[in-house]
Amino acid sequence: MKTVSSRDNPFYKELKALATNSQARRKAGRSLLDGVHLCQSWLDLRGLPAHCVVSEDALANPEVAAIAGRVEAARGHVTALPEALFGAISQVEHGVNLVFVVDTPAPVVPKLLTESAVLLDGVQDPGNVGSILRSAGAAGIKQVWCSPGTAFCWSPKVLRAAMGAHFVLEIFENADLPALVRDAKLPVLATSGYAAECLYDVELSGPVAWVLGHEGQGVSDELLNLASRRVAVPHAGQVESLNVAACAAVCFFEQLRQARHRQP
Amino acid sequence: MKTVSSRDNPFYKELKALATNSQARRKAGRSLLDGVHLCQSWLDLRGLPAHCVVSEDALANPEVAAIAGRVEAARGHVTALPEALFGAISQVEHGVNLVFVVDTPAPVVPKLLTESAVLLDGVQDPGNVGSILRSAGAAGIKQVWCSPGTAFCWSPKVLRAAMGAHFVLEIFENADLPALVRDAKLPVLATSGYAAECLYDVELSGPVAWVLGHEGQGVSDELLNLASRRVAVPHAGQVESLNVAACAAVCFFEQLRQARHRQP
Repeated sequence: MKTVSSRDNPFYKELKALATNSQARRKAGRSLLDGVHLCQSWLDLRGLPAHCVVSEDALANPEVAAIAGRVEAARGHVTALPEALFGAISQVEHGVNLVFVVDTPAPVVPKLLTESAVLLDGVQDPGNVGSILRSAGAAGIKQVWCSPGTAFCWSPKVLRAAMGAHFVLEIFENADLPALVRDAKLPVLATSGYAAECLYDVELSGPVAWVLGHEGQGVSDELLNLASRRVAVPHAGQVESLNVAACAAVCFFEQLRQARHRQP
Repeated sequence: MKTVSSRDNPFYKELKALATNSQARRKAGRSLLDGVHLCQSWLDLRGLPAHCVVSEDALANPEVAAIAGRVEAARGHVTALPEALFGAISQVEHGVNLVFVVDTPAPVVPKLLTESAVLLDGVQDPGNVGSILRSAGAAGIKQVWCSPGTAFCWSPKVLRAAMGAHFVLEIFENADLPALVRDAKLPVLATSGYAAECLYDVELSGPVAWVLGHEGQGVSDELLNLASRRVAVPHAGQVESLNVAACAAVCFFEQLRQARHRQP
């Protein structure tokens, strides 16, 4: 384990830039995972990080020590910082002072939509995007495609809300959703509160792609028109809409329910 | 319409306290509704506010002017403030500078659980609580009971996330959930990722009460033991859990689906 104790250390300066500047993260192709749950999930699902960074006091926490130990045992890089220096790195208040620096996964982009997927058309709130990734991961959907206006999936807030779902998904950002939907090899279902067709009347036992839209404006007219079907989650109350992440969960798990129901 | 232009005006001082201090809101039994959507919903569903407050410039916005006009036409109170004074009142960045002060509804607390309801056991995140209220309202569930550790439902963040669902629900805070579950007159289903019973195998065509727990620890052991059943949303992926608001939406809409399915 290395120890860095100067603010002028080049590695510390790089780390601080990654922690505080989303441009720096994009340019470097790196992301920061903050806290035990995300770091543990990365180790379990993806292997070693580029760097494991801890505060000196954090090593007294057995969970943190175990993770740092696993990284060292596998010949990974672990760096300890004094508390005063770590403060500028973590964005989590009352966090455990454990951060992984990882290469942001850049999966090979498929040419066509051929398996169950989620298409995010301008979903803006990082908490909503994170919750949608988490629900997709839990429902067994593997691909997530994001329009240019959607919140950046590898931001700290989205990572935190998704609780490790990123590491089991293939995430394609800045995707040309209209082109993708036009050439899709499976049914594309756009969700809309105004759709005439009810989610529960749609046959969902095979793979489908779900389109989810902006919190206020919903799915764009272009995608609504290109989609195979427009479906609504039926309502029973006087409240006219659902949060987009709640709508996503209802859709993904209705697909899972129907698929299970078909199994012998 | 009145105009207040001094920071020393007693009504302005009271308003500022309500806007910035949750204790002041609780003590006064009043809540603040920020923005066109919440104010409009209140007018439609609950009637006049105690006060309608706008910034002078905001009256140029036709939606704001229409709402202020409706309040005045019904002989309600409308007060205009200069922009500089309104800034301390609104917590919404780039908002429209329209706020209703309303008496926080205090519905008569039923003695027993006799109809479909949601029980929140220490749900902490205001965004999650708001999303759950919104889903409950959309699914036609009317009662929400909150344990003392749950986020305060009438806080600005919860109000914003629920998009007006508060006004169609009966919300009972600081409820003794164990006593309520013990004497419940209908099945109480506690959600848990560790439950053996699958949501889709449960008969849900009649009224039930759902128990949802803390984001990290889930439903307390006491309530898990008191509940009629413990149910899990089945997973198909490697991600082990769902966001509590996503889980709530899946449960409420599975109940709605089964109820619709039974209809002739």
